[in-house]
Amino acid sequence: MIKIFVIGKPKTKFIKMGIEQYLKWNSKYDRVELVELPLSNDLNKITEEEYKKQDKEKFDKYFLPNVFKVVLDERGKELSSIDFANKIEKWRIGKKNISFFIGGPLGHHEEIRKNADFLLSISKMTFTHEMAVLLLLEQIYRAFKINNNEKYHY
Amino acid sequence: MIKIFVIGKPKTKFIKMGIEQYLKWNSKYDRVELVELPLSNDLNKITEEEYKKQDKEKFDKYFLPNVFKVVLDERGKELSSIDFANKIEKWRIGKKNISFFIGGPLGHHEEIRKNADFLLSISKMTFTHEMAVLLLLEQIYRAFKINNNEKYHY
Repeated sequence: MIKIFVIGKPKTKFIKMGIEQYLKWNSKYDRVELVELPLSNDLNKITEEEYKKQDKEKFDKYFLPNVFKVVLDERGKELSSIDFANKIEKWRIGKKNISFFIGGPLGHHEEIRKNADFLLSISKMTFTHEMAVLLLLEQIYRAFKINNNEKYHY
Repeated sequence: MIKIFVIGKPKTKFIKMGIEQYLKWNSKYDRVELVELPLSNDLNKITEEEYKKQDKEKFDKYFLPNVFKVVLDERGKELSSIDFANKIEKWRIGKKNISFFIGGPLGHHEEIRKNADFLLSISKMTFTHEMAVLLLLEQIYRAFKINNNEKYHY
């Protein structure tokens, strides 16, 4: 089972459509679930550190030892789609379940980065968090295709 | 003026919606145009080299010396969004017009890569050509925002 945790609900219509499409397509291969956590609006009332700590606390109960935790982070490691597909197979051997964590507007609290099993960067370019959800779902779908030796249109 | 040339018409509904949205948003800043070139279907009838050459010929008449030519290629250079925004400003100084070229299913002919002014890679991961159009349009929009010192939601 794969879960994707994201802070801030995707709102743009075309992104929501794309997310739904890939969730449906991915369900052919495995349970893939998107968990949307609330976005705090008090960025102007508290310090950046406090804000990040609040976001960290939203993740805490899902940050479990028996799950392979992949944290999306711009300082993380970039992988080719084929390497990502291989990693997904490998990560499941020990833990079975994989969870991805996409942070809020200020990025992840240091604790989250430190306790991740893998820090993943999708691109050197910055995308919105909702676009990151879409891209990640597409790469998970591509990984399923690769790992099942199925063709995927270019 | 910015043009994006792509081989193969984007077909997926959510992608088409996203492309339209960003074309509209980008039009606030500059003329940004998407030019869709026909995809050949005779991949099984001709060699890979011939196929790539056909794709190259579709680009030829747009591959002009007075335009700054950015070719999207997985072996290209990755840029952060800020570096990309800076490059867009820089590229326009001499040439004014920028054209982006997104190749067909087999990638670009060697001639196209050799004659590009810049080889750009969006990610180490592979995305469909239609997703590449969407990501590029989003990064162009982000670049406009960055270059105009405007805020962009994360």
